[in-house]
Amino acid sequence: LVHNVPCAHLAAVADTDLVSAQRCAAEINVARAWADYHALLDDTTIDAVVICSSTDTHARIIEDAAAAGKHIFCEKPIDLDLVRIDRALAAVERAGVVLQVGFNRRFDPSFKKVRDVVSSGEIGVPEIVRITSRDPSPPSIDYVRVSGGLFLDMTIHDFDTARFLVGQEVEEIYAVGGVMVDPAIGLEGDIDTAVVTLRFAGGALCVIDNSRRAVYGYDQRVEVFGSGGSASADNCYPTSAVVSDAHSVRRDLPLNFFLERYTPSYIAEMRAFVDCVRIGGVPPVGGDDGRAATALGIAAAESLRRDRPVRLAGLGP
Amino acid sequence: LVHNVPCAHLAAVADTDLVSAQRCAAEINVARAWADYHALLDDTTIDAVVICSSTDTHARIIEDAAAAGKHIFCEKPIDLDLVRIDRALAAVERAGVVLQVGFNRRFDPSFKKVRDVVSSGEIGVPEIVRITSRDPSPPSIDYVRVSGGLFLDMTIHDFDTARFLVGQEVEEIYAVGGVMVDPAIGLEGDIDTAVVTLRFAGGALCVIDNSRRAVYGYDQRVEVFGSGGSASADNCYPTSAVVSDAHSVRRDLPLNFFLERYTPSYIAEMRAFVDCVRIGGVPPVGGDDGRAATALGIAAAESLRRDRPVRLAGLGP
Amino acid sequence: LVHNVPCAHLAAVADTDLVSAQRCAAEINVARAWADYHALLDDTTIDAVVICSSTDTHARIIEDAAAAGKHIFCEKPIDLDLVRIDRALAAVERAGVVLQVGFNRRFDPSFKKVRDVVSSGEIGVPEIVRITSRDPSPPSIDYVRVSGGLFLDMTIHDFDTARFLVGQEVEEIYAVGGVMVDPAIGLEGDIDTAVVTLRFAGGALCVIDNSRRAVYGYDQRVEVFGSGGSASADNCYPTSAVVSDAHSVRRDLPLNFFLERYTPSYIAEMRAFVDCVRIGGVPPVGGDDGRAATALGIAAAESLRRDRPVRLAGLGP
Amino acid sequence: LVHNVPCAHLAAVADTDLVSAQRCAAEINVARAWADYHALLDDTTIDAVVICSSTDTHARIIEDAAAAGKHIFCEKPIDLDLVRIDRALAAVERAGVVLQVGFNRRFDPSFKKVRDVVSSGEIGVPEIVRITSRDPSPPSIDYVRVSGGLFLDMTIHDFDTARFLVGQEVEEIYAVGGVMVDPAIGLEGDIDTAVVTLRFAGGALCVIDNSRRAVYGYDQRVEVFGSGGSASADNCYPTSAVVSDAHSVRRDLPLNFFLERYTPSYIAEMRAFVDCVRIGGVPPVGGDDGRAATALGIAAAESLRRDRPVRLAGLGP
Repeated sequence: LVHNVPCAHLAAVADTDLVSAQRCAAEINVARAWADYHALLDDTTIDAVVICSSTDTHARIIEDAAAAGKHIFCEKPIDLDLVRIDRALAAVERAGVVLQVGFNRRFDPSFKKVRDVVSSGEIGVPEIVRITSRDPSPPSIDYVRVSGGLFLDMTIHDFDTARFLVGQEVEEIYAVGGVMVDPAIGLEGDIDTAVVTLRFAGGALCVIDNSRRAVYGYDQRVEVFGSGGSASADNCYPTSAVVSDAHSVRRDLPLNFFLERYTPSYIAEMRAFVDCVRIGGVPPVGGDDGRAATALGIAAAESLRRDRPVRLAGLGP
Repeated sequence: LVHNVPCAHLAAVADTDLVSAQRCAAEINVARAWADYHALLDDTTIDAVVICSSTDTHARIIEDAAAAGKHIFCEKPIDLDLVRIDRALAAVERAGVVLQVGFNRRFDPSFKKVRDVVSSGEIGVPEIVRITSRDPSPPSIDYVRVSGGLFLDMTIHDFDTARFLVGQEVEEIYAVGGVMVDPAIGLEGDIDTAVVTLRFAGGALCVIDNSRRAVYGYDQRVEVFGSGGSASADNCYPTSAVVSDAHSVRRDLPLNFFLERYTPSYIAEMRAFVDCVRIGGVPPVGGDDGRAATALGIAAAESLRRDRPVRLAGLGP
Repeated sequence: LVHNVPCAHLAAVADTDLVSAQRCAAEINVARAWADYHALLDDTTIDAVVICSSTDTHARIIEDAAAAGKHIFCEKPIDLDLVRIDRALAAVERAGVVLQVGFNRRFDPSFKKVRDVVSSGEIGVPEIVRITSRDPSPPSIDYVRVSGGLFLDMTIHDFDTARFLVGQEVEEIYAVGGVMVDPAIGLEGDIDTAVVTLRFAGGALCVIDNSRRAVYGYDQRVEVFGSGGSASADNCYPTSAVVSDAHSVRRDLPLNFFLERYTPSYIAEMRAFVDCVRIGGVPPVGGDDGRAATALGIAAAESLRRDRPVRLAGLGP
Repeated sequence: LVHNVPCAHLAAVADTDLVSAQRCAAEINVARAWADYHALLDDTTIDAVVICSSTDTHARIIEDAAAAGKHIFCEKPIDLDLVRIDRALAAVERAGVVLQVGFNRRFDPSFKKVRDVVSSGEIGVPEIVRITSRDPSPPSIDYVRVSGGLFLDMTIHDFDTARFLVGQEVEEIYAVGGVMVDPAIGLEGDIDTAVVTLRFAGGALCVIDNSRRAVYGYDQRVEVFGSGGSASADNCYPTSAVVSDAHSVRRDLPLNFFLERYTPSYIAEMRAFVDCVRIGGVPPVGGDDGRAATALGIAAAESLRRDRPVRLAGLGP
């Protein structure tokens, strides 16, 4: 926002920890810092807010911000509970403000190119989608505890990517998974490795595979196969250098981790939000997208628990 | 056998169509041609037979050949019915002859390299396996009618590849699929596009995606992801030439079709069989492997029909 | 400098065209703008200057800036004349200021990685270096007229890259070339396509190929081959997306042009300069490097004119 | 010839070492073996001969075979001396027999594809050609002694490849080189590393780089850059397998050595020769091609010795 989004002006920072807020504000040359975000909502010179707080506070802040007439960018997920999400979305709708959800991967140049190829009809009707999404190493157990579980914390990005790439809604989901990386994750009732199958309304099938630990780095690839061909996006690498010696032909590891791999996408999503606020228009990732991804995460967890496919119909608002 | 397997001598050809048998024998400079394969089994100078007849005759010929004390190479699948397979395997065991099943992809240099990497422990414990297996175009409807269906005709190769790569047995299978390529395939009660999930005994997850029509050619890729890294094999191409012009940087399409892509593997599997017959030893793809792949095909079909995962336990002999 | 070099503060802008200077200053929020750069040199609060004027003014401004005690970053080339370069470098030495020359490609992450591999000894003693450097389209004829010719305008970067990669001085040079892109370039006495061979003091051979027009985009690749292997860097692409259809497997064109391809290197060279000024130390691309590349450009032009190899010995200061 | 060229029948083997001839004949099931090749030329049932003897015998055998009315396939080079080559070619012309020279790389599928792209006009007029040709390890010193030197033994293939790719004659050549691999090669008056620049009649420039030792294997790549784009061919690899672990993303080494890399080309060139003999037509690599490559090798040696470019005009017959 400060360096890379020319049309925005960052007016103030709010953080429940006032010292953090002040330090952050000082670093980026922002005049005001608050402990209570309501101070920020009361400031009539502020047009929009960016919510990066912990997940359990998102829905409430959205409602408050909407009530104050602020446009809203909210990090994913909106909430782990569909009822609270619906209430927040209703507040946004009543207020007529913009709500954009932080599914930044839609703005990754390579993923976006794949989507553009699909949209153009160049590869025909989508039939099979493959998404590989593996983190370099598992989060702390403290984080695992509050994350909502693998499906709502990590796979949720891939659910959104799948919907984005195919441009359809999911009808049925089936998830298998296990604890292969760290038994402590299992003790928290979560899994760290999963394969999820989606069936879209138009018939397309999608498979997502997740791991909390790819020793070679952040592994983020997609492929859409259709009646007229396929489009895929590979990992990104820090350099193109290749070294050949008596043992192998090799390159360096993929960019590691999301801050490196997805930097351009974070900038692009924020620019898109600012444009939406300034110029108007439908946000590229709306509240419904946020809701749908959460619904898929909840359904995936149910599928895993019951070891059977789950239809999405019953999850609507 | 004639040109590329130095230690073997092709003695005779049998085909229910005698004219075909004679023409084939003439082409490859073989003296004897028969309409009835029993003539061949009665020939005591013959050590081994290669069964390439239609699937519904495999089990019976295996039993006859075993009874005649011939070593046997049989194209996949052994049969579409587990009871008949078990009877054939029992006959082989009684006779003490070698039986090798034609899962040639185990001999593909790239797939074999991936297996070698997995076996060496270089990438740790296998956790996720991805197999993409797409044909360039669907077979004739006549063939579809007798093929046993996508899972027993096409995916059966991938089931074997999955077992080969992981080195474990499958415990549970889940299949989704549909008719996206040709409605006529659907009219025959078959599908042409599928995604199948396997859970191995050791916990590893595997996902196979199949299509009867990849317009860009024969798409055959595998990846094994493990606790210590990943190993993958890509498609093979007729040349390495890359052309760059004002529009794109491009290469030619993958080798198309199995005769081109898997030529080295067909030679290698036949050499391995001949070595087994001459020198002794366990065949690299045994009757049990043939049975297991068929069992997975049957289970996949059941999973698709009932839209739920199916456990493999109940399918044992 | 304004957005990406945190430790620097841009104090003023000078341009012989005052309106341009003022517009530029306004855009980037800088208070002062001058038509005469001496105003800037007289400002004792300013530590360093960045010279981006036309080539024929570089040497004079360097001398003036050095006399004023300013540290200097100067765009390549320092000058087209070795005598004027030597005078400017002498002024820098007398003043004891930092002079860094704008050979930004040394800071390209991929080229730098190749250099690091060479430096580490990982590929042994360098024996053959290949540099491909092709522009997407020729510059305007007006620019060609004042550019100093292909060797001093374009190949000069590759001369520096070669010296950087090998870490040695060039002893002999041979250049061939022609007018293949635009006859108007020939009418100006220049060429647009060239192949230049260098022999380094340590024996390593290097070949550079240049074109003013690669229709597929900016083509910038290097390879160092040594007694223990090779290291190479390929072009950079806007996305990793690959599209396969019935005709080809293809990706998009390389990043086009230097502003896109070399953005990270421009930022990195400026940060390195600012660090040099703030913390001290030898600049990573010094005046001698600037001189050596110009000497090679002059020798290449002589080689082309006389159609024979030229030894570098006679070109020393 | 025995296994892969269906329309040919190998009638007899001649070798000055009769035991070798007999052993070879026995291995491939050929009835006749001679110590004196004249026995073979006297056999009127034989249509054509394949000359694979040592280089210094090629020209004489060609003359004898032509006089006997045999069609001739001769391994490269025809001879190291242009006068002897001209005499042999005159004998071939008088006899009206087919002479094909063994520049097998023209039949490599990837190089041929590049040539086809150039011929089609798809990349416009050729402007720059790059050929990298590096052996995995140097030959024995005994071989170096009789090889005719790097240019006539190794680079000669690349000279032919360059002429093949561009479809023009070379006007000027410049060679630099040195002894970097093995001092013993230098003691024999030869070099082991070289960079050669060619200027074609149509203006195109070509650069060839050679080394007798690439520790990572046989390195054989070409690129043609033209007014409308570029076409390149990369090395060939035994498998497509890629392994990623915590240290690198790597593949295996290129195919090593010519017998592996160029197997398909050896078969294809022999088929083309046999077709020429059977059906008629101009051989794809004629005596003039053999002569031109030798002339370039001689000129390269002269250029290296005199350290200046050499024009090819004076080398004509």
